[in-house]
Amino acid sequence: MVRSEMAFELVCTVCGFRHDGSRYRLHCDRCTGLLDIEYDLPPGTGARTVPGLPGLCRYAPMLPIKDPAGFVTLGEGNTPVIPLHGVGRDLDLRLLFAKLEYFNPTCSFKDRGNAIQVTVLKDLGITAAVDIAGGNAGHSLASYCARAGLKFIGFGYEDPQSPKIRAIEQTGAEIHWIEGDRRDCSEAMAEFCAANGILNLRYSQSAYFIEGQKTIAYEIAEQLDPLPDHIMAPVGNGSILLGLWKGFREMVEDGRIQAIPRLHAVQSEAFRPLVAVIEGYDWRPSLHADTVAVGIRISEPPRLAALASACQGSGGTAVAVPEASILRWYRRLASSDGIFVEPTSATVIAGTATLIQRGRIDKGDRVLTILTGYGLKEPIPESAATAN
Amino acid sequence: MVRSEMAFELVCTVCGFRHDGSRYRLHCDRCTGLLDIEYDLPPGTGARTVPGLPGLCRYAPMLPIKDPAGFVTLGEGNTPVIPLHGVGRDLDLRLLFAKLEYFNPTCSFKDRGNAIQVTVLKDLGITAAVDIAGGNAGHSLASYCARAGLKFIGFGYEDPQSPKIRAIEQTGAEIHWIEGDRRDCSEAMAEFCAANGILNLRYSQSAYFIEGQKTIAYEIAEQLDPLPDHIMAPVGNGSILLGLWKGFREMVEDGRIQAIPRLHAVQSEAFRPLVAVIEGYDWRPSLHADTVAVGIRISEPPRLAALASACQGSGGTAVAVPEASILRWYRRLASSDGIFVEPTSATVIAGTATLIQRGRIDKGDRVLTILTGYGLKEPIPESAATAN
Repeated sequence: MVRSEMAFELVCTVCGFRHDGSRYRLHCDRCTGLLDIEYDLPPGTGARTVPGLPGLCRYAPMLPIKDPAGFVTLGEGNTPVIPLHGVGRDLDLRLLFAKLEYFNPTCSFKDRGNAIQVTVLKDLGITAAVDIAGGNAGHSLASYCARAGLKFIGFGYEDPQSPKIRAIEQTGAEIHWIEGDRRDCSEAMAEFCAANGILNLRYSQSAYFIEGQKTIAYEIAEQLDPLPDHIMAPVGNGSILLGLWKGFREMVEDGRIQAIPRLHAVQSEAFRPLVAVIEGYDWRPSLHADTVAVGIRISEPPRLAALASACQGSGGTAVAVPEASILRWYRRLASSDGIFVEPTSATVIAGTATLIQRGRIDKGDRVLTILTGYGLKEPIPESAATAN
Repeated sequence: MVRSEMAFELVCTVCGFRHDGSRYRLHCDRCTGLLDIEYDLPPGTGARTVPGLPGLCRYAPMLPIKDPAGFVTLGEGNTPVIPLHGVGRDLDLRLLFAKLEYFNPTCSFKDRGNAIQVTVLKDLGITAAVDIAGGNAGHSLASYCARAGLKFIGFGYEDPQSPKIRAIEQTGAEIHWIEGDRRDCSEAMAEFCAANGILNLRYSQSAYFIEGQKTIAYEIAEQLDPLPDHIMAPVGNGSILLGLWKGFREMVEDGRIQAIPRLHAVQSEAFRPLVAVIEGYDWRPSLHADTVAVGIRISEPPRLAALASACQGSGGTAVAVPEASILRWYRRLASSDGIFVEPTSATVIAGTATLIQRGRIDKGDRVLTILTGYGLKEPIPESAATAN
């Protein structure tokens, strides 16, 4: 393929300084700001898509990969959109849809980001990577590393018996257990990487990862015509929301779509940094804050300002939902629609209910929810085991 | 839609007696033989496919459903095919592929059969159904019943804490626990159904279920050109093998394909009724026979003769694989290819290795394996927890 190495650049989100794709980059060389990826391709779908290729590869010209032939795939993407009749009836919402991101290789949305991330690592000749083990991200990353022949070294700090950790172990990954919390774990990783000269991946800060997530937007535009009025996404680090925002803006630029759906972020009441920014108040997590929505148990997302822009720029908002509502909709999805997701995924239905109450979503609106992970990936919360 | 109720008939596999689709039928009215489904449509893809529709619906004219608009879907089908580079290298097989059937709503291949099965029940106005709880089949069936608003009553006899049972509970299904084995459970179900006038589904005998499974063949023909030389399927009751055989024969009739791939059945050494039939010896399971391949722990598949025809008619065979080989390839799939499946799924790689050794598969052949269920659906066997 005759694509130049300059087909994409990493642009600092703070000072605008531009970097080439010759290294794995998380931060600006000049000011240490986080990076975004920009492409040197004229607008218009002709140059920007490859219709014949499978999965994410059909968007290859707008992804930070050099050659689709080297793409590291486990079959990710092309996830279905189906109507939610049962929960829709509960909400008196006739046009409620779900995009089922658990139809992915490790049963969560993280696979889109990691397909791109690991393809980039392989492109660059990197042979080993370190990141946090545990969670959907770790499970996904370990699987893609195994697929690409990269060594994955995971650092864990909680729940060695969780289904995700057991799955990571099967990939043959090396796991180091750290006593302490997420911060202690990050410090241990940084020390280990510095001492051993191994890449500290920190996917949650990565621009490559968001590029993978933006393929959700491209698929939605192919699947739903007209586009939904609202899209509901759970937000921890917020890579789905950022991916949706970037993907839809690229398609507006291409003339492929005319307007962007309202993008709404859903957080738990216990972890609501983005809701606080949008509603304009100070927020810190309580000392013993916790939530059944473990996938979005994040108090300091690295791209908070960009997340606020995605919501506000699209005419959307952010909403915090209580535990009881998450669990109620978690159960209702299973019993009314036969859909068994992680509690984190159920937040989007809880958020939809709240926005209907607040008059932000009308009964006649078309609403698309993103269901991010399969139920078996997370033990069923004790509090959800009671009858419906 | 202007399709007559006579578009399909249920034909006895023993005496050939024909029945209409006005009732849920498992057995011949005349001789109690099992049934096959036949369609009253001329060969040729024109009348037999609906290209615009999503998922299994595009094969609707060749499925026992009345109207695609009433199709009960959770997004099943359209599962990806990917190359197995790592395991392929281990086997010195350059063209080894996998069809990933865990990209389905409940992460197993059973969803194809149950989408059809539950659509038929709904079509016929049936509001409740009974079958065995547990296993991929029970999990899938409970989910589709919830989706369609049918009451599912499951009978369980082992492992109330398994991930699949926990998932079934979330659908709101009623579960009755029976002390004893599978036979005791079947007897209890039959009594319950007779006493309460509720349908005893017995999906493992159902012709409708096989019709759902045959969509795997249709998809393979769309995904792989040329077709693979060999297809490896795990066989318990054997619905995948029967579905492949039926689907490919229909496509030969339509002129869509010229020849059928060799269909090979893989069983565990502990449960090998089909291997015994094909190799011509008597077989019964040992008293304490067991296998990590729990999905094919079946000693009396209801359609044994038809399974033998599928293998022999396609030029394939059946092979029994030992526990150590299943576990070895279970681990290798995860560590070499990043693919985490149930041990049952790993049997197809073990079977491929055996057929290479026996000279039935050549190094240059194109081989497609069917990976049936995701790893998280089954606890990791203790014997697999050791290093690779």
